[in-house]
Amino acid sequence: MNTTEQETTQTSKQVISKEDLLNHWQGHRNLTRHVIEAFPEKEFFEFSIGGMRTFAELTSELLAIGAPGLKGIINRDIQPYNEAAVKATTKAGYLEKWDQATSEINEYWNQLTIDDFSKTFNLFGEYEFPVIQNILYFIDNEVHHRGQGFVYLRALGIQPPFFWNR
Amino acid sequence: MNTTEQETTQTSKQVISKEDLLNHWQGHRNLTRHVIEAFPEKEFFEFSIGGMRTFAELTSELLAIGAPGLKGIINRDIQPYNEAAVKATTKAGYLEKWDQATSEINEYWNQLTIDDFSKTFNLFGEYEFPVIQNILYFIDNEVHHRGQGFVYLRALGIQPPFFWNR
Repeated sequence: MNTTEQETTQTSKQVISKEDLLNHWQGHRNLTRHVIEAFPEKEFFEFSIGGMRTFAELTSELLAIGAPGLKGIINRDIQPYNEAAVKATTKAGYLEKWDQATSEINEYWNQLTIDDFSKTFNLFGEYEFPVIQNILYFIDNEVHHRGQGFVYLRALGIQPPFFWNR
Repeated sequence: MNTTEQETTQTSKQVISKEDLLNHWQGHRNLTRHVIEAFPEKEFFEFSIGGMRTFAELTSELLAIGAPGLKGIINRDIQPYNEAAVKATTKAGYLEKWDQATSEINEYWNQLTIDDFSKTFNLFGEYEFPVIQNILYFIDNEVHHRGQGFVYLRALGIQPPFFWNR
């Protein structure tokens, strides 16, 4: 750690800047939006493999984690995980909530300082980790479930969006 | 960017430290190792959904990207992507290559400086991006394909490892 800290002081450089991490996350969120769009309405709510959740249910999870989780971090306000609050009944409804979350995430992100990333936060009252780990979890969990959405689309004979399409 | 740089100088803090980013990546790689282990030998090489690649083929991709990509970055040596070089014929063979890559990644990582992350590198002579973006791609691509492996396991009636098992 000492070496890293000395290097930082010398160079004022970040492994990843706050701005680039937001762009990285929002880029992934944009790709996930394309995956939601690629599902036919019916299959979005009904199709699954091996007893897994539908892509609508996975989308609800992503919506219940990203913006609400970041809001909790910013306000230092521990709220329980609440999927019921983000559910919609149509794909268009989910896409609208997705776009709302995009704006909220940008707004909350502006309020984060570099110091905040290493502070501990008890996400949803269940996961007590440094904020950077909470945020990397938001991203990883989305990439993980979106990868599952790619398999659902392939199983339905639908070409998923290109992985670089962000 | 100015605000970020000033904050960094003041606090000597990183959004994510070099050490934590390595632990994050290796934690994901450890979970992927558990996914490889969870496949029956035959299905690892033969099972797929919707015309996608088998998990053995996806594992070859991950092996061809991670350690070779990082080696190229460290040595500033642009080599083409080469999946043939990392193929094995048994699950045990893949796990052995996986563990070799784990050691190599740790070794190369030690040679990275904070400055390196923002320098541009032409990965495999095809993807010219800042090194941090190359490395985030290594991780995201693995999480993406491992998520697909989770669906394969579920479709085979096998419980995947817990997402937090790193």
